[in-house]
This record gives sequence, C-alpha cells and structure tokens, in this order.
Amino acid sequence: MKQGKTIISALQRNVITLDYIQALNQKQITALAYDLIQDKVGGLPLVSAMSEIAGSSVMLIAAELLSSFNEGQGIILGGITGVPPTKVLILGAGTVAEYAARAALGLGTEVKIFDNHIYKLRRIKEKLGYHGVYTSTIDVVTLTEALKETDVAIGAIRSDDGRSPCVVSEEMVASMKPNSVLIDVSIDQGGCFETSDITTHLKPTFRKHDVIHYCVPNVGSRAARTATTAISNIFTPILIEIESQGGIDKMLFHNSWFAKGVYTYRGGVTNDPIAKKFELPCKNLNLIIAAYL
Amino acid sequence: MKQGKTIISALQRNVITLDYIQALNQKQITALAYDLIQDKVGGLPLVSAMSEIAGSSVMLIAAELLSSFNEGQGIILGGITGVPPTKVLILGAGTVAEYAARAALGLGTEVKIFDNHIYKLRRIKEKLGYHGVYTSTIDVVTLTEALKETDVAIGAIRSDDGRSPCVVSEEMVASMKPNSVLIDVSIDQGGCFETSDITTHLKPTFRKHDVIHYCVPNVGSRAARTATTAISNIFTPILIEIESQGGIDKMLFHNSWFAKGVYTYRGGVTNDPIAKKFELPCKNLNLIIAAYL
Amino acid sequence: MKQGKTIISALQRNVITLDYIQALNQKQITALAYDLIQDKVGGLPLVSAMSEIAGSSVMLIAAELLSSFNEGQGIILGGITGVPPTKVLILGAGTVAEYAARAALGLGTEVKIFDNHIYKLRRIKEKLGYHGVYTSTIDVVTLTEALKETDVAIGAIRSDDGRSPCVVSEEMVASMKPNSVLIDVSIDQGGCFETSDITTHLKPTFRKHDVIHYCVPNVGSRAARTATTAISNIFTPILIEIESQGGIDKMLFHNSWFAKGVYTYRGGVTNDPIAKKFELPCKNLNLIIAAYL
Amino acid sequence: MKQGKTIISALQRNVITLDYIQALNQKQITALAYDLIQDKVGGLPLVSAMSEIAGSSVMLIAAELLSSFNEGQGIILGGITGVPPTKVLILGAGTVAEYAARAALGLGTEVKIFDNHIYKLRRIKEKLGYHGVYTSTIDVVTLTEALKETDVAIGAIRSDDGRSPCVVSEEMVASMKPNSVLIDVSIDQGGCFETSDITTHLKPTFRKHDVIHYCVPNVGSRAARTATTAISNIFTPILIEIESQGGIDKMLFHNSWFAKGVYTYRGGVTNDPIAKKFELPCKNLNLIIAAYL
Amino acid sequence: MKQGKTIISALQRNVITLDYIQALNQKQITALAYDLIQDKVGGLPLVSAMSEIAGSSVMLIAAELLSSFNEGQGIILGGITGVPPTKVLILGAGTVAEYAARAALGLGTEVKIFDNHIYKLRRIKEKLGYHGVYTSTIDVVTLTEALKETDVAIGAIRSDDGRSPCVVSEEMVASMKPNSVLIDVSIDQGGCFETSDITTHLKPTFRKHDVIHYCVPNVGSRAARTATTAISNIFTPILIEIESQGGIDKMLFHNSWFAKGVYTYRGGVTNDPIAKKFELPCKNLNLIIAAYL
Amino acid sequence: MKQGKTIISALQRNVITLDYIQALNQKQITALAYDLIQDKVGGLPLVSAMSEIAGSSVMLIAAELLSSFNEGQGIILGGITGVPPTKVLILGAGTVAEYAARAALGLGTEVKIFDNHIYKLRRIKEKLGYHGVYTSTIDVVTLTEALKETDVAIGAIRSDDGRSPCVVSEEMVASMKPNSVLIDVSIDQGGCFETSDITTHLKPTFRKHDVIHYCVPNVGSRAARTATTAISNIFTPILIEIESQGGIDKMLFHNSWFAKGVYTYRGGVTNDPIAKKFELPCKNLNLIIAAYL
Repeated sequence: MKQGKTIISALQRNVITLDYIQALNQKQITALAYDLIQDKVGGLPLVSAMSEIAGSSVMLIAAELLSSFNEGQGIILGGITGVPPTKVLILGAGTVAEYAARAALGLGTEVKIFDNHIYKLRRIKEKLGYHGVYTSTIDVVTLTEALKETDVAIGAIRSDDGRSPCVVSEEMVASMKPNSVLIDVSIDQGGCFETSDITTHLKPTFRKHDVIHYCVPNVGSRAARTATTAISNIFTPILIEIESQGGIDKMLFHNSWFAKGVYTYRGGVTNDPIAKKFELPCKNLNLIIAAYL
Repeated sequence: MKQGKTIISALQRNVITLDYIQALNQKQITALAYDLIQDKVGGLPLVSAMSEIAGSSVMLIAAELLSSFNEGQGIILGGITGVPPTKVLILGAGTVAEYAARAALGLGTEVKIFDNHIYKLRRIKEKLGYHGVYTSTIDVVTLTEALKETDVAIGAIRSDDGRSPCVVSEEMVASMKPNSVLIDVSIDQGGCFETSDITTHLKPTFRKHDVIHYCVPNVGSRAARTATTAISNIFTPILIEIESQGGIDKMLFHNSWFAKGVYTYRGGVTNDPIAKKFELPCKNLNLIIAAYL
Repeated sequence: MKQGKTIISALQRNVITLDYIQALNQKQITALAYDLIQDKVGGLPLVSAMSEIAGSSVMLIAAELLSSFNEGQGIILGGITGVPPTKVLILGAGTVAEYAARAALGLGTEVKIFDNHIYKLRRIKEKLGYHGVYTSTIDVVTLTEALKETDVAIGAIRSDDGRSPCVVSEEMVASMKPNSVLIDVSIDQGGCFETSDITTHLKPTFRKHDVIHYCVPNVGSRAARTATTAISNIFTPILIEIESQGGIDKMLFHNSWFAKGVYTYRGGVTNDPIAKKFELPCKNLNLIIAAYL
Repeated sequence: MKQGKTIISALQRNVITLDYIQALNQKQITALAYDLIQDKVGGLPLVSAMSEIAGSSVMLIAAELLSSFNEGQGIILGGITGVPPTKVLILGAGTVAEYAARAALGLGTEVKIFDNHIYKLRRIKEKLGYHGVYTSTIDVVTLTEALKETDVAIGAIRSDDGRSPCVVSEEMVASMKPNSVLIDVSIDQGGCFETSDITTHLKPTFRKHDVIHYCVPNVGSRAARTATTAISNIFTPILIEIESQGGIDKMLFHNSWFAKGVYTYRGGVTNDPIAKKFELPCKNLNLIIAAYL
Repeated sequence: MKQGKTIISALQRNVITLDYIQALNQKQITALAYDLIQDKVGGLPLVSAMSEIAGSSVMLIAAELLSSFNEGQGIILGGITGVPPTKVLILGAGTVAEYAARAALGLGTEVKIFDNHIYKLRRIKEKLGYHGVYTSTIDVVTLTEALKETDVAIGAIRSDDGRSPCVVSEEMVASMKPNSVLIDVSIDQGGCFETSDITTHLKPTFRKHDVIHYCVPNVGSRAARTATTAISNIFTPILIEIESQGGIDKMLFHNSWFAKGVYTYRGGVTNDPIAKKFELPCKNLNLIIAAYL
Repeated sequence: MKQGKTIISALQRNVITLDYIQALNQKQITALAYDLIQDKVGGLPLVSAMSEIAGSSVMLIAAELLSSFNEGQGIILGGITGVPPTKVLILGAGTVAEYAARAALGLGTEVKIFDNHIYKLRRIKEKLGYHGVYTSTIDVVTLTEALKETDVAIGAIRSDDGRSPCVVSEEMVASMKPNSVLIDVSIDQGGCFETSDITTHLKPTFRKHDVIHYCVPNVGSRAARTATTAISNIFTPILIEIESQGGIDKMLFHNSWFAKGVYTYRGGVTNDPIAKKFELPCKNLNLIIAAYL
C-alpha cells in the first residue's frame, strides 16, 4: 500500500478556509492538527506545553510593564518587607492560570483567581499546593471591587467553543488604577476584556483608560527555544513509534489518541467541527484506514 | 547562712503598690517576677510561652465570634473554594502576632500584618516561612483602607514602656464592616484601639459601631491546663538547678539570667524601674548576695 | 410547550415519604435534589461545598469544647513550644476529613487519619501535600490504641448507601481520656460512634463516659452566610445557563450532569433509588423530555 | 539652643570629596548618611530595603535578557514539564542573593549559591526554607564547572571594605554558554566578574565572549516607586520620633542606632572611616551634643 | 452450590508455566493474582503498596552503598552546608520514582527525573508538590550528560508489556563516575540499564565499569514486616466483604474490580494475556459464575 | 621575627595529657584545636559541619538497623499509605538533632523532639520550618510513654561541660519495643542512655533488653569524603588569609575568632579550661603575640 503524504501543523479553526480543506483533500493529504493530538490519558500535550510557557511568561512581561523604564508604575512585581505586595488578578483556572499563579506567588505577590467552575478552582488550589489562595466565582460585584485594587490583570479563560467569554466590561477596565497592567492571553479567542485589541511583538502594548494593555496572541514566542524543545519532546517519541509500527497509517489505526489529531484523510474530512463548518460530510477515519491496511 | 523566704509571681507593674513593696522588704523576702526571668539567650521564656498561647487562642475566639450562633457574620474563619477567604488584620509583629498569623494562615484566611519596625516585619516573614505574606508599616492611609475590608482585627502591639500605642482611632473602627470582630490582646497595656475597653471572661464582648469587641486581658486562661504545663516546663528545670546549686542565693549569684527576675532582696529593691516608680534606692543584687555567700 | 413547575431542594432520602412523591407527581412538578446535581467532571458541587464548610468548622468547634470555659480540658487546639501538641483523630478520608485535617495541621496539632480505602488515604495525603501525615486502615487494635491518646475524635465517614458504618464501639469510647471531644459529622447517616446521638444547636453536646459528644447534624449552619454564598455561587451560573438555553427542559435535555438532579418529572419518578424505595416504576428522563421538546 | 541645619543623603564613600566635607563643616551642617543609620537590632534598614528590591529585580531583568526579543537564548526563566529548568548561579549569600534566590526558586529554576562564609550559606538556607538548596564555598574547580552550565549568573558579593572581591576571571566568563546572562549587582563596589564594566539604564548591556553583561549600578531604580515607599516607610517613624523627642540633637543623643548615621556635626567629622580617608580628626559625637543640650 | 477452592498469589507472568495452569484447571481452582486485583477507582492497590515500599527503600540502600564502609564514595546521601548536594537521577515517573524522589528530596539531594511521557512528568511534579523539580524527556544527549555527574542512578520504568525498555547503554554506564551507585528496580522486567544483571540479597551488588550495581528483584523484602502489614491492610477488608456477601463467587460476580484478579476459574482460563501466552481459549468469568449462582 | 611551628588538630579534652601539653610548650608549638576555632559570628564552624554530617547520617544508619537483613524489625524508615509511620524520638535540639529531624521528616516518619531548653526547641521548630513538629521538655512521664512506642531513639544532647546528661535510665530502655533501635551520638561525651557503651565501626552494635544499640563515637566517618570536603572548605579560606596577612601570628593577633582555637603558644597554655585541668597558669595570647610583632 502506498502511504499518502502527511502534514502536521497547528489548526487555526477561525482562520482555516474551505479552499485549504479542498486542496488537502484533492492531494489526498493526511492532515494532522498538533493541537488536537492527545496523550494516552486524554490530555492535549501540545496545548498544555504552550500554556505552561504562556503562563510562565505573562508574569515576566507584567514585571517589565510595571518597571519605571517602560512608563509603568515603577513598582516591583513581588513584595519587599513593609511594602504591601503587588496585586495580581487572574481570570481563568486552567494551565495558563496555574503557571501564571505559580510565578506570581513565587515572586511574592498577592494573587486572586476567578473562574465560574468550582471544580477548576478546587483543582488549581490543589495544584498550587496553597490552601489559602484566594479563589472566587466570577461575581460582578466581587470582580469589580477586586479590579479596582489590582496592579496586574491576566485574562486566561479558554473556551471550548473557540470564543472566550468577555467577562470584564470597558467600564470595569476604566475603574482600574492608572498605569496598571492588563495582559489578555485569551486574545486569540477574542479576549476576556472588552477593551482588548490584538497587538504584535513589534508594538505589543497600547493604553486605554490609562491601563497598559498587552494583547499579543502568541505570548510563548518570547521563549522560542523553550517552545521548540517542548514540541520536539512531544513529537520525537511519536515519530519513533510511527517508525516502529511500520508507517503512519498503522500508527493511526492502533492509537486512537494520535488519530484524534487527523482532520483530513485520503480525500475526506474526518474531524466533526471542521466538517460542520464547511458543510462537508464527516468520514470515519478508522473505517477508511482499515480498508487500506 | 539562713536563706530568706522567696516568692515567685507575675509582676503587674501597673498594679503594684508601695505598701506591697515595703511589706516585702520588711519581711526580707526575695521576690521574683516570673515575667522578668530570662533564659540563657536573653529571651523571656514565660512571656514567650504566654504569648504563644494567646496568639494561638485569638483566632479560635475570632472563629466563635464570626459564627451564626454568636450573632456574628455567620462566616467561616478560613476559606472554601470559590468563596473569597476571610480577611484578618494583625497589629504588631511579635510572638502573639506570629502565632495568630500561623493559625490564621493555617485555616486558609488572608492575613495582613502591620508594624512600624521593619526588622520585626522581616523576622515574622522568616518565622512564618511564607515569603508572600502581606506586611506593611503603620501608614494611616493604608491601614484605614485595610480595616474597611477586614473581618477580624487583632491588636498585638506590646510596648517596652508598658503602654501600647493607640494606633486605631474611633473613626477608623467606625468605618469597619458591621459584625466584624476586634480582639485587643494589648488591652492589659491599654490597647491599640481607641474603642477598646477591658472586659471579663463572664461578659467578654461588647459592640461599638456595630463592631464586636473582645477585650479580655488574660486570653490564655481559656487554655488553663496548657498554660500550667508551659509554666511548669519552665520552672521544673530551674527548681532542680536551685537544688543542685545549693539554694536560691547561690543560684542567683551564679546565673544572671535568673537573677534578672528579682525585684526585692533582703530588704531592698533591686529592679530599676520599680525603684524609680516608688522613688526608692535601687540596690545591686550581686553585691548584696556576695556579702552573704 | 408549557413548562412544568420546578422545585429545587435537598433530597433527604431517609426522610422523604411516598405521599410527598405522589404529591409531586400529581402536580407534574419537576423536582431537583441539589445534592444530586453534578458538575461537568462528575463531582457533586453542593455536597463538596457543604463538606468543605463542615470540615473547616469542626476543628473550630473542637477548640471551643476543649477550652476551660466550656468545662473542657482547658487545653489549646494546636501546639506551643515544649508542650506536646493536641492529638486529633479523623475517621474518614473524604472532603470533610480533608478540610478538618487542613485546619488541624494548620493549627499545629498531630493528626491521624483512618479509612479502609487505601486509594482515599493516598488521595488525602496528596491533597494535604504532607507526605508524613499519619494514615492507617481501620484496624481495631491500632484504632483502639490511638483513641486512648486522642484529644479530639472526628467521625467523617460517608457511605454510599446512606448509612455510615459504626466503626467505634461504646467500649472504645469508654477508653478515651476524660474531657476528650468527639464530633460526629456523619450523624445524619447514623454516625460512626456507637455512643453518638443526634443533638441540636440549642443543646449541642452531651457527655457519655466523660467524653464530650457533639452530634449536631448540620454543622455548616454555624457559617450560614458562607454556606449561602457557596450555594449561590453554584446556582447562579446554572440559572443563567437555563435562561440562555431557553428553559429548564432544554437545559435538562442537553446537560446530563444537571439532569442527574431530577427525581420526579411530569408525573413520573426518574431516580432509580427513589423508585425502588417506593416500588414505583422509574422513567427515563431523556425520553420523556424529548417528547415535549 | 539653636539647632544646626541637617541633611540626609546616601553616603557614596568612593565619590565623596574633601571639599564637600569641608563645606559641610564650614556651614555647621549635621550630615546623616542614610545607609549608615541602624535599626534597634543593629541592622542597616535602608541597605536591606534596597537589597530586597535589587534582589527581587535581577531575576526579572534576567528574564528579559533571556527572551527571544532581546537577542537572548529564547528560553524561559523557569521550568516547564519535561524541559530541564533554567540554571541560575548566585555569587554571595546576603540579602540581594536571598531575594534573587527566592524569585528564581519561585519561578522554578535550578539555583546554585556560592559564598566563602559557611555561616552565611547556612543562614540563607534557613531563610529560603529549602533544605535542598545547592550551596558551595567558592572553590575554583566547582565554580568553573558550574559556570559552564549556567544560563544566568548573578554577582552579589558585598564587601565590608567597599571593594567586592573579583572571584570570576575573564577565562571563566569566556567558558560560559553563548547568550548566557551575567548581572553584576556588585558593580558599584567594582564587581565580582573580571569582565564587568559599569553600564547605564540607557544602554544597560554589552556582550563579551558572547555573554550578555548587565552592569547598571542602581538596579532598584527600575522600581522607583517601590523604592520611594520603602525609604519613606523607614523615615516616617524616625521623623515622628525626632518631633516627639524635641529636635534632632536630642534624638541623636538618646538613640545611638540613629546617631550611627552622622558623619559631620557642628563643624567636625564624626565618622571614623571618613576622617581617616581625609586625614581629619574624628570627634566623639555624644560628647559634642552633650555640651549643647 | 459447592464453592471451588481458591488460591491467591502473585502472578509472575514471565515464570508461570502451562503445566501450572493446567493443574489449576484440572483441580477446578479459582486462581487470583493479587497484582491484578483492582480497587474501586481502577488502581492496582498491591502493586502501588509494593512500589511505595520499593521507592522508599532504594534511597536508603543507596545511602549504604555510598558510605565509606561499603567501599563506596564515602559521601553522604543529602547535603550539608557548603558542600554541593549528592546528585540522584531517576528513570521513570511512576510510584517507585515518586517515593524515591520524595526520600531523596527529603534528605536534601538534587534530583533529576527522566520519563518519555509528559503527562507522567506533570503528575509526579504535582505529587511531589515541588514546582522546581527537574524533569526531562529521555533525550539521549541530555541523559548522557546528566549520568556523567550522577552519584546515584535509579531505574524505575515499568512497562505495560512486561519488559522494561533498556534506555541506558553500557557506554553510558561506562561514562559514570567511579564508585557511583546504580539501582535497577526494573530488574524483574529485565532492567533499564544494559549492564544490569539480576543479584540476590546474599550478594546484592557487583561492579561494572567501576559503578556499583544493585539489582535485587524484590527490594521491598528488606522491609518484610511493613510489606506484610500493607498486604494485610488490603486483604482484610476484602475477606470481610467476601464473608458478608456470602462467598467468593458472589463477591466476584458483584465486584468487577475484584474479579479482575482471577485468571483461572472452574477449569478455564479467564485472563486474556495468560490465555494468549499458552494458546488456550479465554472464558468470560461473569457468564460462568452466573450459571452457578 | 621567627615564627613558631604550628599544629592544628581536634582537641580531645577528655584524652589529652599533661605530658602532651608539656611537650608542646617545650617545643614552643602554636597548637590550634579546630573544634575551638570560631567563625566571624561566634559559631563553631567545624563542630557545626561535623554535626550536620552526623545528624544526616544517623537516620540512614537507623534505616539499615530496621531492615530485615540486619535482624531488625523489618520495617521501613518512613511511611507508606495506610501503614502508620515509623516513630523517631530525638533527645536534644542542636545541630545533630536538627539534621536528624530533617532527614526523618523528609522520609515521612513521625518525629518527637525532647530538650530542656525551651529556646532551643523554639529555634529547632523555626529551622525545620514545620510548625506542627512535636516538641517537649524532658519530663520523665512524657518521655517514658514516648519511648515505649518509639522505633528509633537518637541521643544528641551535647553538654558545655563535656559530659552529656544521662536522661534515659536502664529501666526506660527496658520498656522499649523489641528490635527498636537506639543510636547514641553523644557517646563521646558519655552518652544520654544509661545502657550506652562505646562501640566501633567493626562491631557497631550490641543488644541490651532486646534494643539494638549503636554507639560508635565518630558517626561522620561513614562519609569520610564529605567530611574531608567540609573541613577543607573551612580551612582553605583561612589558609589563604594567613598567607595574605603575612603569617599566623599576625592572623591570630588581628582575628580574635581565629585565635579562639589556640591552646598553647610559645611555651605557655592560653586556653583557660586546659590550664585549669592541669593546674598550669593561663597566659593572655594577645599580650604575648603583641610582644613579638
């Protein structure tokens, strides 16, 4: 059996076009989205790795924006004896939030975490290993009060349907302190702040209501080499396993966690949301492969 | 040589009278104040032990006063997932504050510590082993803001001159939340809150500006048996050493840390502040003992 | 389609009567038990929240009962330097046990946890983040020895079948120290101590074999406001979602985690154990709703 | 008595000139160096505060220099799962080192601390509260090996005689990895690296042997507002006390910790090293004040 | 119904013979492998318990082998102030690795953990509660470098197919330091080091390339009594439940977690891998039992 | 000036003879005891280093003695889930005790620390960073009860007068569990257990009352290389400083912390206790050196 060509890339569901899908199908390409590949326990290893990097990065970016040399407040991200610690507010309780909170707590700041899922709040408390961490559901009154006192606000709510809920209104942003910092990691899903607007690494920030906004979609690219290593750590064992199993088709057939990443295969769409989006039929991957093996 | 009689008791410097001192001197009594006896590294072991008990007790008292069955706010002292943690504010950074903060952090509350001595704030941070703990100097603006949000305020500033500084004005107390709790451990030195007024274990609380005040001077007596054990732990080795050294005079002569506790000896006052208070001459203890040994 | 009436309440499976169920069915009421509603990962959010409150509360209740002013032992709940720490024994390793253990460890006591499920003991060790915590299976010899030395014993074993196992016999209670404290959180399921007997907030304790028993079923009501906030945190997002989905029927149909809470619907019982208890047929909720949508 | 004029400033011992001292003396000015003022336990409160800020800042600076957008290695300061953590090496074990190590450990990096005083290494281990932290005396072989693998090297050895020991030779710097980062906080005392050369906030870095050098003397000015608050926290209580004691002369006379800061008083030098430097007589401050009180 | 005889033992899949299986079947014996019995959440309680013991033991064995009296390096397992800590490298991230890492970190050593599954590395980081722990995927370059510096290397990779992957070549072992220690806990599955060769408690070690190899298959037997208690803790509740359910057949029928342990039942093989190994048919346990109940 | 010869060795005060001292004086030797040399803050660096090693070693020795292969109890030093942890009792609260407690807690055991000095108990609690650690004064009733349950007892009380107090009677040892382990680190000062008797590395243990006694005086020699490194770390900077100061006499004259180690100098005894022991005059070191410089 001749194997089809294979490409592996990130699946940008909001950007992808019908033309692109049709081209893939015409060329009989096996297209894998690396953000859909799962690990053996059902996690998304590449999304997790990128979220760990993004979460670890945001606090360091915040530190730069708070410093005197970036027209910031001129305060330290952390706490020194006798000076009340910097206040950090995190929207969301997933991996980005977890790593941002770890860094913030490690630097000695005060951290408040808001999310509407109690089980996520309980899980982040356990992961941070700090019983006393402030967690709250997203109650408008409590959130508004907290934002007024915040030095750094992080938006890190990821939505399953690809569109982050906008939980902070422009009015709430306007009530924040002058020179406070707002970093919206959810910007690639539209953002959690009404005032968020996509920026680039060339001009990463803008001011609105005297709040410094940082809304670069791909925070992790600041740490390009760490990201590369992380991705290679995940793909190397997969490539070795493809080799040892005798090709990608066999690999896909025997490993459903890996097959979760395929969205086109031998001329047909195999991913349900993509199929729905372009009103194409969705094929059953395993049945097709079985026919070829 | 015939040994004089010896009594050991707490020295209540504000209560003691000239008559009492004269009676001691007339009867040639060796009077030891157990709150003045030092240990070999210059600490005050009995004051420390009582402070550990008081500090550990205050948070448990606060918990009772916050509960629904004591006309309190009906909130828990601590934090459950998704509900912002109870806010505790501690004035002072000594042993009472340390143990109160330990208990509060252990229960999962948010803790703010105020003191005017940076070195004390640095020390309590190290002792609590929690880099991120909120410490602040007693700045009126910061303190007033913090009090407005506080659920439990603890007064634990001990002064060297026997009179706690009153750092919270009546106006500041009036701005606190209804049903919040105020415990003034410094009440035996006059208290740190302007509204503090001594109470008793029989009727331990009163309300002023809708803030529940608890101002019982001897907090530790709630844990009478623990206190007894602590005192006996300190005195037992001392009594054994007196025995083995051949009497209290020899013990006093050879152990200056122990002699620090003596305020009258064979008819004379040997403690400087007591002597000053009653305008009596202050004798040098060692010289007198030396004459008798 | 006209929507039926809906009531949401706690389901007290031991108390509920056939009359009540028949009345619900006659009135075509959709009855939801809030202790059966699940979250998206299969947890029971309201049971967890109430357990967190109960677990956090028991240690504070124990502290009151140990104090000199409640005819207790007059000892502190915790530890001061040089005085062996108070000993706490917890039966069970679920959420109540976890929060009770957190509070106890935070106050500086010695904690022993007994449960017959090794995986629960492993899980509580991980959650407490304290490798050295004492865990033991419920071995009669070990448990009896441990009880003899205990200052505070907590019963927190919850059974799936609604009836806690009675793991401590009257003889074992009789061997406990005079004035030790016993709090049976499992009392609403019958209790884990043979000597337990339901009490009320008005007269919360009784003495048996000189052990102070506290057996109030609803410990959390001491923190009424915290409990209210916790419940409202869980229901507010649900109510918003019902609204946005176009009514409760659609909400139930599309969200199986929420539908888990329904026990009567449009005239029929939809919860298996309830149906069995009253020998009524159990209807498939989804099939009925589908017919109405 | 008429009080002399008083100025308070930092004492830059390497910069100060004879002209300046003579001018002070001619105008009978009481000159206080705020870096010499002590607190009541013999610490240097302002030096400590500035060191806490510097130590907290260096890791944030290092993070910027490691990022892809500063021509750095493109790695994250910290660690993500499966990628070996960034390696940080700290020379010195004082307050700067302590706060740098706290931040580094909090971000999840691997930290190695080198100092020649075992008691300082023991003290920093205790303060960091992390038994397993790597400490080593400054042994050339061990240090050279460690530098080869280091991503970030911090120089933070402060010398009593005003001149930091140069413990890292140019050869050792040359053996470091390309794009590794070197921050010399000791640069105001000459620096601990042979290749260090003073830089400014305008052009803070240079490359030597492909190692990024950051040698700005006043690291803390990045956090100008935090520094201002810290200084004001220390001075406000002092100013209040001067007021309440009836002027600066009385304050100096009664508080030796405060008087430690004076280097000229009513026409004479009162600080021994300054007097020696300019071959002037050194007056006894207390004797002169006594004459005026 | 007459119950068959039952035996419970460890299933040594590599050792078991066809004769043995046939004998079991001829005698109609119900054979349970205690390493296959699950708990109610799908874990393997006996494997976990033995792994906890093995993991806790290896570091203590390593300490003996490092000491001067065992021809070791004469170094301490841990760290003292000013002496770089001992370096431990662990292959694997399961329960053995977790407990070995806990002990190693508790003793103050430096720990590096290698595994190819990122989710296992993430999980062990969470369980150890130490964000900064070194984790790496098994990259040959990184692993080789790390081994060169290691004092103690632990092999603890368990494979699902009964054969540990050999991840360290003889060449890599040869590059380790003289007198370094290598303990291969995976030896019963063939080992993770190419140089590993099974040893016994009588002569537990051998040297190859001047590296001390310890390859005793059953590490836990050093702690025979702890192991016995652990096993009895798991079986006692099971035996009680068998009794209360009315015999082993009913127990097996109603508890699938327990039935997972059965590999022969009333004359037939019921475990798939065993059946495949000997080319025997595999019977469905539940169907057979149902016929008898 | 011609420098005298210098020797540096441990001072074994109980072993040293008059002949030895006279020989030193006749040869005009400068004799330094390395256990008397201080560091700049008044600590004893070599005693501390050896105590860290001894403390870290005792738990590893205890682990060997508990294992099945040394006729021990066959239990693990530490704790596994569901099996009560091993119980360790430590007499003393100095450096040996601290490091032993760290190792024991790190391995997951239960630790009880007894000492008669409350300030030492408070200090060890702070150093261990674990608020809940069991500390007790040496009360016979409490100690006897604790010993009955102990698996491992460590004697680590060091006395200033060179003779450890014997706090555990033979009767108390006889009440310990069979096969429990007793390690007396204080044996070189006579030991803290009545049943202690010096042993050697060749035959390190004996049994009395079925308790395994380990009483080798120099525990640290198990880790000969670690000890050598530690000593060299302390002496190397001293030797460099001697060189740079122009000889040992100048070094002694200018550094009183170093001079503390000298007990004979140019024909006279300069250490007070040595002089008293042999009824020789004690010379003032500084005065003699001054005459020669």
